[in-house]
Amino acid sequence: MRVLGVDPGLTRCGIGVVEGSGSSLELVDSGVIRTPKEDEIDQRLLALEAGLNEWINRTSPDVIAIERVFSQLNVKTAMATGQAAGVAILLAAKSGLPIALHTPSEVKAAVTGSGRADKSQVAQMVKRILRLREVPKPVDTTDALALAICHHWRGVGDAKLKAAMKKELSRKNGDRK
Amino acid sequence: MRVLGVDPGLTRCGIGVVEGSGSSLELVDSGVIRTPKEDEIDQRLLALEAGLNEWINRTSPDVIAIERVFSQLNVKTAMATGQAAGVAILLAAKSGLPIALHTPSEVKAAVTGSGRADKSQVAQMVKRILRLREVPKPVDTTDALALAICHHWRGVGDAKLKAAMKKELSRKNGDRK
Repeated sequence: MRVLGVDPGLTRCGIGVVEGSGSSLELVDSGVIRTPKEDEIDQRLLALEAGLNEWINRTSPDVIAIERVFSQLNVKTAMATGQAAGVAILLAAKSGLPIALHTPSEVKAAVTGSGRADKSQVAQMVKRILRLREVPKPVDTTDALALAICHHWRGVGDAKLKAAMKKELSRKNGDRK
Repeated sequence: MRVLGVDPGLTRCGIGVVEGSGSSLELVDSGVIRTPKEDEIDQRLLALEAGLNEWINRTSPDVIAIERVFSQLNVKTAMATGQAAGVAILLAAKSGLPIALHTPSEVKAAVTGSGRADKSQVAQMVKRILRLREVPKPVDTTDALALAICHHWRGVGDAKLKAAMKKELSRKNGDRK
C-alpha cells in the first residue's frame, strides 16, 4: 500500500509518500508545495490543487491521509488550513482515491508512542522508521511522512497500534517497579 | 452586474444572487445547499461543489462574493467553514470568475450601517433593500443576500459606502442636538 500524507497549508503544504506494509515501510518521496503569500487566495488554491494533482499523478498513491486539525491558536491560520484541506479532500474525491483524516495527536502517538511528543521527537522517529540517514527537511515534510506512517499502522486496524501502546505502557509500568 | 453571494458552510451553505447597480438592486434567486451530516467529508465537499456549480451555471454571475470568516468560537466549525470556502473559491477560480471576500462586520455595516447588527436587523434590511414582501428564509439565505448587496456597494468603490456612513453618522449626530 502506498500512502500520500498531506499536512495542509497554504504557504507550505507538506507532502510525504510512504510505501510498504506493517513495520516494513519505506520513503517514496517527500516535499513541500508552496504558494506565494502575495498572490490572491483564488490563485493560491488553484496552484495548490495543481501541485497536489502533480504529486498524485506522479506517485500513484492508494490512499490520501490528511491531517485533521481540531484546535489551533490562530483562527486565521485555521481558516487557511481548512481551505487547503478542503482542496486536498475534494481533489482526492475527484481522483477516486479514498481519504483518511488523522489528528496531530493520533499521528504523534502512532510514531512516538505519545500524543504530546514534540516536532523533533516526531522527526527522529520518522528518520528511524523509514531508515533514513538524516531527518527529512523542512519540518512540514516530516509531519506529512509521520501522517503517512500513522495511516499505514492505523490502516492495518487500530489493533496493532493499541497492542504496541499496551506493550509500551506495560514496559513503562515495569520500569517503575 | 450580477453577484452570487456565498455564506460558506458544510451543513448549510447559503446562496444569494443579486443583480443591479447602485441603489437599484433586485433579487435574482436565493437558496441553501445542504450536505448530509452522516456522509463522509469527501462526499460532502463533492456534493457542495456540484451544488455551487449548478448555481453558477444557472445564474451566470459576474462575480462571486464569499464571506471571510476571521473569528469563530468553535474551531471545528471554523475548519468546516474553511473547507467549504476553499471549495467555493477554487470553483470560482476554475470558472474564470473573480472572487471577493467580505467579513461579516463589513457586510453588516454595508446593509445596516452597524458592524454589530444582529441577524434579524440584517434580514430586515435585506428585505427593504431588495423590496421583498417577506424576509427570505432560512437565515443563511439572508446572510448570503446581504453579502451580495455588500459587494454591489463596496464594488462601486468604498467611496459610496463611506459617504453613506458619513451621512448616517451626521444624521445621528444631528438627532442628538
